Order: sequence, then C-alpha cells, then structure tokens
Amino acid sequence: MTTDQNPQATFMADAASEVTTIAVDAMGGDHGPSITVAASIEFLRTHRQPWLHRIILVGKSEALTPVIADHHGADLVQAGLLRLHEASQVVDMDEPPAHAMKKKKDSSMRVAINLVKEGQAQACISAGNTGALMATARFVLKTIDGIDRPAIVSTMPCQNPSNTVHMLDLGANVDSTPEMLVQFAVMGSVLTEYVDKKESPRVALLNVGAEEIKGSEKTKQASTLLAQSKLNYVGYIEANELYSSKVDVIVCDGFEGNVALKASEGTAGLIMNVLREEFGRSWLSKLAGLLTKPILKRMARRIDPRHHNGATLLGLNGIVVKSHGGADQVGFLHALQEANRQAERDVIGHISEEIRKVFNDIN
Amino acid sequence: MTTDQNPQATFMADAASEVTTIAVDAMGGDHGPSITVAASIEFLRTHRQPWLHRIILVGKSEALTPVIADHHGADLVQAGLLRLHEASQVVDMDEPPAHAMKKKKDSSMRVAINLVKEGQAQACISAGNTGALMATARFVLKTIDGIDRPAIVSTMPCQNPSNTVHMLDLGANVDSTPEMLVQFAVMGSVLTEYVDKKESPRVALLNVGAEEIKGSEKTKQASTLLAQSKLNYVGYIEANELYSSKVDVIVCDGFEGNVALKASEGTAGLIMNVLREEFGRSWLSKLAGLLTKPILKRMARRIDPRHHNGATLLGLNGIVVKSHGGADQVGFLHALQEANRQAERDVIGHISEEIRKVFNDIN
Repeated sequence: MTTDQNPQATFMADAASEVTTIAVDAMGGDHGPSITVAASIEFLRTHRQPWLHRIILVGKSEALTPVIADHHGADLVQAGLLRLHEASQVVDMDEPPAHAMKKKKDSSMRVAINLVKEGQAQACISAGNTGALMATARFVLKTIDGIDRPAIVSTMPCQNPSNTVHMLDLGANVDSTPEMLVQFAVMGSVLTEYVDKKESPRVALLNVGAEEIKGSEKTKQASTLLAQSKLNYVGYIEANELYSSKVDVIVCDGFEGNVALKASEGTAGLIMNVLREEFGRSWLSKLAGLLTKPILKRMARRIDPRHHNGATLLGLNGIVVKSHGGADQVGFLHALQEANRQAERDVIGHISEEIRKVFNDIN
Repeated sequence: MTTDQNPQATFMADAASEVTTIAVDAMGGDHGPSITVAASIEFLRTHRQPWLHRIILVGKSEALTPVIADHHGADLVQAGLLRLHEASQVVDMDEPPAHAMKKKKDSSMRVAINLVKEGQAQACISAGNTGALMATARFVLKTIDGIDRPAIVSTMPCQNPSNTVHMLDLGANVDSTPEMLVQFAVMGSVLTEYVDKKESPRVALLNVGAEEIKGSEKTKQASTLLAQSKLNYVGYIEANELYSSKVDVIVCDGFEGNVALKASEGTAGLIMNVLREEFGRSWLSKLAGLLTKPILKRMARRIDPRHHNGATLLGLNGIVVKSHGGADQVGFLHALQEANRQAERDVIGHISEEIRKVFNDIN
C-alpha cells in the first residue's frame, strides 16, 4: 500500500533516494542512436533529480559519440550521469533470435542485458528485435523464483487517458497453464500497485461469453485459483471490454492476448482505410476530410499504445523494457521513464514477495 | 468446381430447379414479427424465381397474421409460398439455454429447427437467443458424420466489399482439437467454394507471430494435418490481417475467434467514442464533425459484419442461420438470402462428402 496517514511521510516515500541505473541498447530500433541517445539525454535533462540517475549507452562508441555531441550531452558524460559502454555488434531487426543468441554475444542488446545481470544496472531497455530480446533476456536473466515463464505486459489505450489498464500476456507464451495465468495476475497486480500506485488493483481473466460455454478448461481452473488468492480478483472480462477501464489488470494466455492486440490493430487499420476511401468520394467529403485530419491524428495518438510507452518483459530477474522499434524520441523517452519507475519502485522485489504469498494462500 | 466450358451449361447449373423451403423463427430477435415477417415477404417479392421458394413462418398466428396483412402478403399465403406454422412459446432473449431446452419445447425456435429435422425445410433462421439456438440445434439436428462439433462461421468485413472472407469458429467451441480445426477448414472451404463460387479457396490458420514462438501445439498439429490434406492450405495468418482479404477462409479455435471478433468490436467502439470527444473540442472540430457524420455512418455500415448477413452454425445435419438480434429488415433479408443460398447449393451434402475425402487423405 502506498498511501499513508501522514502526507509528509508519503512525500518522502515518493522521492527516490537511491541511484538507479538504466542500460540502454543504444543501437536498437529502426532509428538507432539518433533516437535512443537523444531520448536518454532528454530523460536526464528533464528529470527533477538527475543526480539520482545513471544511463549507460551500450553500443559502438564511434556511432554514439557524435550523437551525444549533437545533443549537447558532454556535460552529462563529464558528470558521470551518462556513460558509454562498448559493444561491437548489433542485432538486426529481422535476425532470427537463435542466430542472434549464438553469433552476437557482444551485441549492444546482449551487453545491456548482461549489465543488469551483473548488477551494474537495474533495468535495460531496447527498441530492437523483439524475439532476440525475449530469448536473450530469458537466457541471461532467468525467471524469478516461483515464476515459470516471463510475460509481455503493456498498458491498453483507454477512452479516459488518465486510466491505465495492464494486459498480460501479450505473446511471450502460448499453451500457458492455469498456474502461469495466476503468476501473470500477480505480476500485473504488483505493477499496477507499485508503479501506478493503485491500491488493490482489480484483476480480471479474459474469457468468451458465448452463452452456452463458460470458457476453456484452463481459464476455469485459473479462475478457481484466483478466487482463492489474496488478489482482488473480480472475475471474467470479454474482449469487447478491453478498452473500457472496468478493471486494472487483464490476464490471458499469450496466444489470446496477441490475437486481441493484433485484431485491434487490424480493425483500426481497416477503419482508417475505409475512412480514407469515404473521404475521397466527393468535394464535400474531401472538405470534411481536410477539417478532420488533425482530429484523426489526435485520435490515432490516443489509441495507439505504442505512442504511450513500452512493453515490459515481466517475470525475469531484472527489468527489461521493450520500446516499439519505430518509436520516436517521445516514445522512447516514455519507455525510459517506465523502466525507471519500475526500477525505483523495485517491481522485481515486490513480485518475488507477492508470488510467494499468493501461492501460499492457494496451496 | 463451378465453372464449366459451356456458358449455357453454367447458366443452367446456376438456376435452381428444386423448391427450397426455409423455416423462419418469426418470433425471435429484438423486434420479432415486424422484422422477420416483413423480410420474409420482401424475400419472396424480390426473388427472380419466387415459385421455387417456400417460407414457413413459425410462431403465434395471432401475432403473425396482422403483420402479414400489414405487409400485403395475403396473395403469397394463398399461393402457398408463405405459410404459418403454429408454435405456442417464445424463447426470451436472455433465457438460459438449458431452461429454453427443457421448458420451451413448443417455442418458435425449437419448432423451426424441428421442421428442418423432419425434412419439411432445408434451412431455418432465427434472430433469437444465440445460446439457446446453438444448444437446441445441436440437440435436435446432431452433427454431420465426421464432424465432432459445429462451428459458428461468418464473413468478415473487408476493405473491398466484393471480397468475402469466412472465419470460423467464432465461439461455438473452446478447447478444440487439431482434428476439429481441420474439420472447420473443410466446412469453411466448402462454404466458400459452393456458396461464394470461388474455386480452390485459400485456407489459413490463425496464429501468433511473436518471433520466438511459432504458435500453440494445437495450431502446429493442425497445420501439419492441413498440409497433408487436399485443401488449398496456405499457412498461418496473424490477427492484424483478418480484414486484409489475403485468404478466403480463416480457421481458429472458438476462444480465439471470439476474442478476435470482440476485440475488433471494442476497438471500433473506442475509436468512435474518442472521435466523438475530439469532434466536440472546438467550433471548428464541431463543424468537421457535422460534415463527417454521413461518412462515419457509411463507414460503420461497411465494417459492421452484422449489417451484411447472419452467422451460420455449420456442421449440423441441417442449415441453421443466426441473424443478429437487433437486425433490421435489410439485415434479416440478407440472412434469409444466405440461408437460401446454402440450401440451394447443398452445403450440408458437400461438407459430408468433403470431410470423408479430406480425412481419407490424412489417415
């Protein structure tokens, strides 16, 4: 619980007092250093307590140094807040994960993860190849005791932008077991409680509502387990309510989560394409289209979760944030801030603790 | 195959020569007889060969007779093309399926299905309670030999409205086996080949594309089986391509299909709500909103599959079409036309035949 009777005490608890270090895969993403370095410098420049933060830019120094200069980051390097860490290789965006694991042991991605493993950083962040990041992070960091498999978690867009809903798993695991769904529920609940500072987050299981059937065997068993746990489990939710802010955490198998996310993406794409066609039909609709353009742009920004922040690979012994490959500086900055919040609020420690408690209740 | 060297022969094959009879649950749906009766009369009035069609309106005659009069259907009744079949009960829209099965043995829904079972009709159609319709149809009609469970199939909206993509299962079954997915593939393929008259329909399996994982065990096994079959199996498709018209048939478990459909519904709702908010922000955006209203309406009509036609419960010994509960006369008419096409083109017979061939190839 994060609230307190004494507002002064709350304020003190809110203010971080320890240094957090984030390792940035500075070569990753569609745009590489031009985005990752710029966002890292902006992160330090705009933070109210920059002296409590360190960013390690991992990559080829000959690529990174000029970008630091371009963004006037020399003073941050001198102060030791920003530093370079050499890595000689880069994982390609379309490289098979197995190949990256075997042949790219000195990649910026791998080295950034190693820094977390060695305790030199509390979190790492990459906009690079998702599959390679997942595979490497799992291999290097291993899962937290009591967690079978990590899950991909992200916030869902909501009509009210001040609401956040975490959904997991979005595609790290298929064929997950009921116990794994409970582990996802614990992880999502911890993230919401400690990072978003929401007390007793409402946790729901994704299910289908066809009248005759009440869901898959796995979902039913997970529901029974969750009802016995100390989590604030509120029951089933259907996929048409993913964006309704009715609950705080939505738990599902990675296949279903991935299908939900991608079907949403497909629908948004279909709507935009059909609108484009309809706006082209007559001079009146062309005029309407012209007037509507900025509105559609604002709408797209609001509903595209990738514009808000990154996804987290949760459940490992270290924080691993995945920024969208095509993220711009604002997007990558958001992902950096998310990584930082998770580090400051010790998400890994809290998951470790909660997972033990919850499974004690159930067993 | 439906094409032929001789265009005259094709024409002859196209023209139906036998009478088809459709049993209509005339009491079902949010609007009941005012829609079902009106659409039935319109179906007969607008068909180019009305003498080859019979519609049986099932329900309470005291409710149906005045509506027939209102819509000037007396001559159709006299000619025997339209007739009433008494049923004393009505299944409520929110009635538990088990209750409907037990207590409503003389419901308009049940009696319409019985008419198919008894061979008095080739197809039935209802806009009533989905769960009750599924349960009753399965109980009364049983599945086709070689089909374990029926599936819900519907066409997906596409950017190009002349394309049709069938997706199944949309929620009749969860925990389906690889063999069931192959059965769905056969059913979707037959529907596309014989009803839409597309040769050698491209069949794809819904899967996730997270780089590291290649899908669930069930999906992988189904893929192996489909590759051995005589179907035109083209591999995996991801949920962001559901509306892309890249394939003709998309096969998935009912849980995943239901999640995809409902997530799409939720996304469309979110987009419309956010747009409404954004259009309200200033006088300029209000003006844009005013001009855009008819465009948004056309867009909504194009992407809402329920405006096009009904869903079919496929795999039973008889055609069962489910119209959306809130369908208007146009919507119900489309569903009637779909039921009629399936009956004329003997979808059930073709499924029966194909399922045997396909499983012969595999085993």
